[in-house]
Amino acid sequence: MALANRSELSFHQVTFAKGFSMEIKSENACFGGAQGVYAHASEACGGEMTFGLFLPEEAKLGPVPVLWYLSGLTCTHENAMTKAGAQAWAAQEGIALVFPDTSPRGADVVDDAAYDLGQGAGFYVNAIQPPWDRHFRMWDYIAEELPALLGRAFAVDLERQSITGHSMGGHGALTLAMGRPGQYRSVSAFSPICNPMGSDWGQKQFTSYLGDDQSLWKPHDASHQMQEVGFDGPVLIDTGTQDQFLDLLKPETLAFAIAKRRQDGHLRMQKGYDHSYFFVSSFMEDHIAFHAEALYAE
Amino acid sequence: MALANRSELSFHQVTFAKGFSMEIKSENACFGGAQGVYAHASEACGGEMTFGLFLPEEAKLGPVPVLWYLSGLTCTHENAMTKAGAQAWAAQEGIALVFPDTSPRGADVVDDAAYDLGQGAGFYVNAIQPPWDRHFRMWDYIAEELPALLGRAFAVDLERQSITGHSMGGHGALTLAMGRPGQYRSVSAFSPICNPMGSDWGQKQFTSYLGDDQSLWKPHDASHQMQEVGFDGPVLIDTGTQDQFLDLLKPETLAFAIAKRRQDGHLRMQKGYDHSYFFVSSFMEDHIAFHAEALYAE
Repeated sequence: MALANRSELSFHQVTFAKGFSMEIKSENACFGGAQGVYAHASEACGGEMTFGLFLPEEAKLGPVPVLWYLSGLTCTHENAMTKAGAQAWAAQEGIALVFPDTSPRGADVVDDAAYDLGQGAGFYVNAIQPPWDRHFRMWDYIAEELPALLGRAFAVDLERQSITGHSMGGHGALTLAMGRPGQYRSVSAFSPICNPMGSDWGQKQFTSYLGDDQSLWKPHDASHQMQEVGFDGPVLIDTGTQDQFLDLLKPETLAFAIAKRRQDGHLRMQKGYDHSYFFVSSFMEDHIAFHAEALYAE
Repeated sequence: MALANRSELSFHQVTFAKGFSMEIKSENACFGGAQGVYAHASEACGGEMTFGLFLPEEAKLGPVPVLWYLSGLTCTHENAMTKAGAQAWAAQEGIALVFPDTSPRGADVVDDAAYDLGQGAGFYVNAIQPPWDRHFRMWDYIAEELPALLGRAFAVDLERQSITGHSMGGHGALTLAMGRPGQYRSVSAFSPICNPMGSDWGQKQFTSYLGDDQSLWKPHDASHQMQEVGFDGPVLIDTGTQDQFLDLLKPETLAFAIAKRRQDGHLRMQKGYDHSYFFVSSFMEDHIAFHAEALYAE
């Protein structure tokens, strides 16, 4: 089904730019709004990309603020959309949610046998090393191409964006927020990879995607960026004390950097929680309320 | 006025131990309960000590949980009692508040010309170096002598204690909580001195009170203790991003340690706040609600 057939559920804007095409994979009524899944040709990633978009009922009346949710290793656009319990709170706050995929995909896209490299493991960077450089440009996709597309196709207000994510997606949210000053009003993360330059979740991928020159890694290390750049807005980080990947996540380096930089930031170690979506969903209400405060500030 | 003349306001228990004496300096009705100031002979400090005690209305019916508030450099028992805005929230939760002094005092107590050594600057340690060792035993006073006295004289439940404090008092709260396992159910701090072994707020005082052997300093360094010992309960730390003493407080060392240890702990850098009681009072409701949850847990 082409978007040119306007759907009540998609709440899309009336006019699409000439040549614009997007496929509606599904649309479901959800908390008074609509949860859609859409596919489109991506220039950044050199192929078809799929994303989920939740639009609250308020989007029928005009553009609404938008919260990006970046997912973790092995996830697609679908995991958070079905398991994070985010739509209830986004509906309450009148906020759109975007659930991008975590990498380019498809038979013609290079991959690796490991779960943590290649498809499902884009790490939110622009690869410059072959063979990854042909498709793996998730930084540009998330920061530029997809928001531009959303702004043309749906009632979302690109002047009011915030960003969050889980694990590798928390890494992406934090590094994008600090690397694209002015784009996001607030940033949060659930059990983010905090110091990929010091972790097996990072060193391997950065070497593959970016090469051996570690100066190119630094913009993609949240702890480094927090020490050197910081974020001009509020930061909220939640990590479970029973997270099975704490040695890879290294929340202590980000905690140090937030306090040292005097960043407006809350770092919470949540007792008894692990790395799962049961953890993410438990604190989703907090995170969406946190972003809503920034998104609706004058 | 001797306590043997029972006062309606003091809510004290009926029977005092033989030989027990305490002077009522003042008692004022306050949020349905009573704010008192009492003086007593202290064995630990070798002289008269003064403290403030807020008892909520519930203390008329029986022992209530108790939250200790330890004050910072230059403070007496009075500062937090008048400026922290704590009684409103303690009354709501049915919790007693104790406001001890920050050091021994008096003409026969040794002092120093500096504001941060001697009277008003006890640092919550037991001094072992002369001339300080004669009076400066605030650790024993806060951890043992004063709670025992309160338990005998007032309707407070020593099985339900929690502790908080500001600046030097935040240091005291954290080190007492970790150094006296089982005594306190929860600990919080407002802009605490986090790493006195690495700060001019600590090195000077520990050298004077404890001597040059730094192994004796470690139990009094919250960041060291958090790394090595931790706390068997929840921790809440608030520090202002505009705190004028951040270089002395070093919240980054405690932030690192909380995350590294996987401590149940929330570390919040609060945007725009400084070191004053305007900061403390702004977050007092949060802190008392935090402690109430632990104090009323089954």
